[in-house]
Amino acid sequence: MEKEIFKGSVFLNPVPAVLITSRKDDKYNVFTVAWCGTVCTNPPMLTISIRPERLSYEYIKDSGEFTINLPPKALTKMVDFCGVRSGRQVYKIKECGFTIMPTQNISSGYIKECPINIECVVESITHLGTHDMFLARVVASHIDKNLIDERGKIHFEKANLIAYSHGEYFALPQRPLGSFGYSVRKKKKKK
Amino acid sequence: MEKEIFKGSVFLNPVPAVLITSRKDDKYNVFTVAWCGTVCTNPPMLTISIRPERLSYEYIKDSGEFTINLPPKALTKMVDFCGVRSGRQVYKIKECGFTIMPTQNISSGYIKECPINIECVVESITHLGTHDMFLARVVASHIDKNLIDERGKIHFEKANLIAYSHGEYFALPQRPLGSFGYSVRKKKKKK
Repeated sequence: MEKEIFKGSVFLNPVPAVLITSRKDDKYNVFTVAWCGTVCTNPPMLTISIRPERLSYEYIKDSGEFTINLPPKALTKMVDFCGVRSGRQVYKIKECGFTIMPTQNISSGYIKECPINIECVVESITHLGTHDMFLARVVASHIDKNLIDERGKIHFEKANLIAYSHGEYFALPQRPLGSFGYSVRKKKKKK
Repeated sequence: MEKEIFKGSVFLNPVPAVLITSRKDDKYNVFTVAWCGTVCTNPPMLTISIRPERLSYEYIKDSGEFTINLPPKALTKMVDFCGVRSGRQVYKIKECGFTIMPTQNISSGYIKECPINIECVVESITHLGTHDMFLARVVASHIDKNLIDERGKIHFEKANLIAYSHGEYFALPQRPLGSFGYSVRKKKKKK
């Protein structure tokens, strides 16, 4: 495998593509973020990065709160739209037909049409360059009851989530290649 | 869509599942990270989070350098293995049959069998809880020449990358749902 060398550029792929809701006074906004990731298991923490010129930057900085909404495949076009268009020009929530539901511990609201919603409280903001990094703590999550089986296991593979890779959106297949630990797990003997 | 409320827990999915190489003196190590993400476009920056008890934590803290290697689908079992087993017990690079190639600006080396390799220099380490967050700057990348077309475009969709979602590994399909901006792009008129 012969390689070509590139200067610094962020080629980490695939990444999530999620809808972020936030609120300022009585106005809600939604926008799309791919620059996000989990940073700690306990306490549960994550980061989202935002360009300071975005309207959501102002909402989230002022309120110190936001909700991450994981979109299903059926909403991919809206995910793209909410990343391209600004809340200064279009009221995207209405344009996309999203229903805003009340969040439990924060005031940002969540998108009913997304099967998983994560309430976050900002702990710090770090200026990096084009983007500021918002480090946040997860304070609650809302999960579609249809994804939870009788033993309480959450079936994310049934949520039809999407991934973003180098400018393109991809549907996750329903069937996994394996689950954590499968490389060393002993096979059950057939009875 | 009825929802069930959960307390704080990190349900952000899907996320990357990548192999991280690092070096201490003349020893290389490799381990798997899913808690990672892009945090800035320019300068190109990302984070990876590591439990302090991991051997790689020591290597990366001491050297201030690491390489992110994006694994193709064919290496999924090795990705799992490198996340489950410790470099204190097994020399994972040999066990997995990985070839370590020299990196350009750092000394961590990269895995030849992974089509994309990202050289990173640590800028800060933040203790959060179970994990410490390593904020890093990308200083170079190595891309498989077979992914680059004659116009210089990199075809990540041909790299057979994998995503990790709630404990399971998934192959990205080759065909995207759409590309950035497709929701507002005017269709070309047929001539």
